Amino acid sequence: MRYEEFTIEGRNAVLEAYRSGKTIDRLFVLDGCQDGPVKTILREAKKQNTLVQFVAKERLDHMSETGKHQGVVAYAAAYAYAEVSDILEAARAKNEPPFIFLLDEIEDPHNLGAIIRTANLAGAHGVIIPKRRAAGLTAVVARTSAGALNYTPVAKVTNLANTIEDLKKEGLWFVCADMGGQTMYDLNLTGPIGLVIGNEGQGVSRLVREKCDMIASIPMKGDIDSLNASVAAGVLAYEIVRQRLKG
Amino acid sequence: MRYEEFTIEGRNAVLEAYRSGKTIDRLFVLDGCQDGPVKTILREAKKQNTLVQFVAKERLDHMSETGKHQGVVAYAAAYAYAEVSDILEAARAKNEPPFIFLLDEIEDPHNLGAIIRTANLAGAHGVIIPKRRAAGLTAVVARTSAGALNYTPVAKVTNLANTIEDLKKEGLWFVCADMGGQTMYDLNLTGPIGLVIGNEGQGVSRLVREKCDMIASIPMKGDIDSLNASVAAGVLAYEIVRQRLKG
Repeated sequence: MRYEEFTIEGRNAVLEAYRSGKTIDRLFVLDGCQDGPVKTILREAKKQNTLVQFVAKERLDHMSETGKHQGVVAYAAAYAYAEVSDILEAARAKNEPPFIFLLDEIEDPHNLGAIIRTANLAGAHGVIIPKRRAAGLTAVVARTSAGALNYTPVAKVTNLANTIEDLKKEGLWFVCADMGGQTMYDLNLTGPIGLVIGNEGQGVSRLVREKCDMIASIPMKGDIDSLNASVAAGVLAYEIVRQRLKG
Repeated sequence: MRYEEFTIEGRNAVLEAYRSGKTIDRLFVLDGCQDGPVKTILREAKKQNTLVQFVAKERLDHMSETGKHQGVVAYAAAYAYAEVSDILEAARAKNEPPFIFLLDEIEDPHNLGAIIRTANLAGAHGVIIPKRRAAGLTAVVARTSAGALNYTPVAKVTNLANTIEDLKKEGLWFVCADMGGQTMYDLNLTGPIGLVIGNEGQGVSRLVREKCDMIASIPMKGDIDSLNASVAAGVLAYEIVRQRLKG
């Protein structure tokens, strides 16, 4: 998937983006390229903890719109990321028990956008996504979120399992949607809660699942396997909303 | 939006598609084209009640993949449509009160596919879509439905409001999601039910809304207007599932 709107090409443009504080989601560098300017860019990338991929010239040519990538192409985030602490602060400011979405490697930007939209409307205080193997805050996500990205903070973390551990210390309970769990209607989903949504194909990863306090299953009457990830997120989020309204 | 996989071009190919009983969602004919073969195709289109649009040569050229459209391009349905009676029959066969989704002009094929997927998993007996101003059963829809299109019948009707009237005679109640309704948790959504989902931008049309027995609102705590249509459909459908399981 490409987000051409936020592709930055060429050494100066990419370095400039780093220096202006822009968040770069991914950096692609021509394999074997080791000269001065490229080394400077790689140093900035390391500082910002950007994912760097060394790729063949053909790949860069394919990504490039201008044809003048000079061995460097960056994908920039359309929106700025928040910190996990900002999300907790948002809950505190509203005097509400924290309600956070954690997305375990959602890859489709349309799903990510729809989930951020749902998080906003369900009254969640923020969304946490992992740095690796996940869609970032691109233009497609911004559009699909229908404006929610302007209100709902999204934080990006290196390790979702560690973040869950940290948030447990803040009093949060974690529920993930997965096969073989308890029917969501039978779980107590009130109080400070983190809702974990798995990847479109593989579901919740083992390490993250093991950190969860509850595994919720959505009743399935049909002939196929699973709901669309953003629909599942909506259904679970609104079960939390229902229980919170009732409680 | 184009569904190239199911574009049929050229006079013979289109006529053949009609004669083999294939469902054509839309037919595009070169404006002013009135010769014998085209008249034959238009007769078939009328029989099948296909939407016909007379368009300029540039438009056809743009749609055409082969460049040999001969003034005729058809968009064919990827899947066969069911009848409303098939849906009622499916409920009867399972000895369940009918549960039907009615989609009031859902335009985005990804939403349509995700909603059919939800309908399947929520145990609905079928989906009804209108003939006009709505996405049809194209390849994109089939793919996004994750296989649900093989199990959940989809019927296409000329007038959704009339279909609602007919189904009321079969004992169904209708609920639509819209602003200013009652919170969904406070409505009785058990028994034979039709769930009406509105268009992505405009919501439920006035005529259809007036036919509904109940207007349900999904609690919205956020800063933006509305959920994604397929998420809203999922949230409402699962409130119906919850009430049916409890009842």
